[in-house]
Amino acid sequence: MSAGPTERTRVHRLPEKQVADLATLHAVLDTGLVAHVGVIDAGQPYVLPVGYARDGEQVLLHGSTGSRLFRALAAGAPTCFTVTLLDGVVLARSAFESSMNYRCAMVLGRCKALSGADKDDALRALSDHLLPERWGDIRSPSRKELAATLVLALPLDEWSVKVAAGGPDDADEDLDRSSWAGYVPIREVFGDPVQTVPNGQPLPDYVQRWQR
Amino acid sequence: MSAGPTERTRVHRLPEKQVADLATLHAVLDTGLVAHVGVIDAGQPYVLPVGYARDGEQVLLHGSTGSRLFRALAAGAPTCFTVTLLDGVVLARSAFESSMNYRCAMVLGRCKALSGADKDDALRALSDHLLPERWGDIRSPSRKELAATLVLALPLDEWSVKVAAGGPDDADEDLDRSSWAGYVPIREVFGDPVQTVPNGQPLPDYVQRWQR
Repeated sequence: MSAGPTERTRVHRLPEKQVADLATLHAVLDTGLVAHVGVIDAGQPYVLPVGYARDGEQVLLHGSTGSRLFRALAAGAPTCFTVTLLDGVVLARSAFESSMNYRCAMVLGRCKALSGADKDDALRALSDHLLPERWGDIRSPSRKELAATLVLALPLDEWSVKVAAGGPDDADEDLDRSSWAGYVPIREVFGDPVQTVPNGQPLPDYVQRWQR
Repeated sequence: MSAGPTERTRVHRLPEKQVADLATLHAVLDTGLVAHVGVIDAGQPYVLPVGYARDGEQVLLHGSTGSRLFRALAAGAPTCFTVTLLDGVVLARSAFESSMNYRCAMVLGRCKALSGADKDDALRALSDHLLPERWGDIRSPSRKELAATLVLALPLDEWSVKVAAGGPDDADEDLDRSSWAGYVPIREVFGDPVQTVPNGQPLPDYVQRWQR
């Protein structure tokens, strides 16, 4: 059950950029590859990049049992899970309105550690998100590897999405300035694959289909 | 004065990926456009995307006085400032070794709010980082806009950098698997600029020189 924006996640600054539909939340999460996760240790916030995948109304993430911060997340420490897609730079006619285009999803909550078949399924989902169709070509995790890996689920319960798109919102008094104004899109692209240990294997078809 | 990695920022997991030289820290910060900043409010960590710029041995960031979390940062709340550059996906022969290539800089500390000429200079530096050479074409901040903007400096004192590059580090027992193994680079690129209010102004030369 999704509560969506709450008082804690409601956007006070530029509220017109807030989007409340679940489809946009899903789209942002399904497009991103890296989330930044916050966790507190001894009064200090830490912000870690993590791989993740969306699975219905939760996000899955994984990390090492050797990580103090991941162990805190697994124990249910409050967290903030943020995915930001940078879509471009915005060239306004004033410094104040100059900005970026982006889509940002933020989820608050506490993670639950997965085990057994749920953990196995989650590792498969994490691989499928980062490396679609790869799973059939790689060795599944061994018992020892599973024991070294924490797999966590965070429900999409309390969340917000903020979207900035298009051109600048210049103030009326700036509109007659003789500056070019608009935006420059930014996107991520894949480069040419690099085979690091040539073993005669051709590049898999699925890699050729990957697109950002 | 830079302390670099401390006990709090020392990389325990995969320590071979830790890099301790200041030049790499600077390069990561100078390449990124968005940082993720952590701050605690009422026991809850929040992770916010922010624009920033490096200025010598500090990073500059700015936000609205209307933001509760930015006001907490301005008041010196402990923060974690993380910049992650996603460089590619790594195709190992096992699920466990499948991963991403990235460069990640993390800075711990407390921000200081800037005012007067320091604040003016910092806003210029923030513009120059995001939109090189743009400053001369745009209206400088008004007194009212300055009053609505918090500009913060975070010293590069306690920090760490982690770099993962190249191909997978497969276990010996996986090397004879008949899978293609290597990596696929990811990079950010600019798309074609979009002029949103056509006013006869040509695209500035400096925009044509921008590259990711």
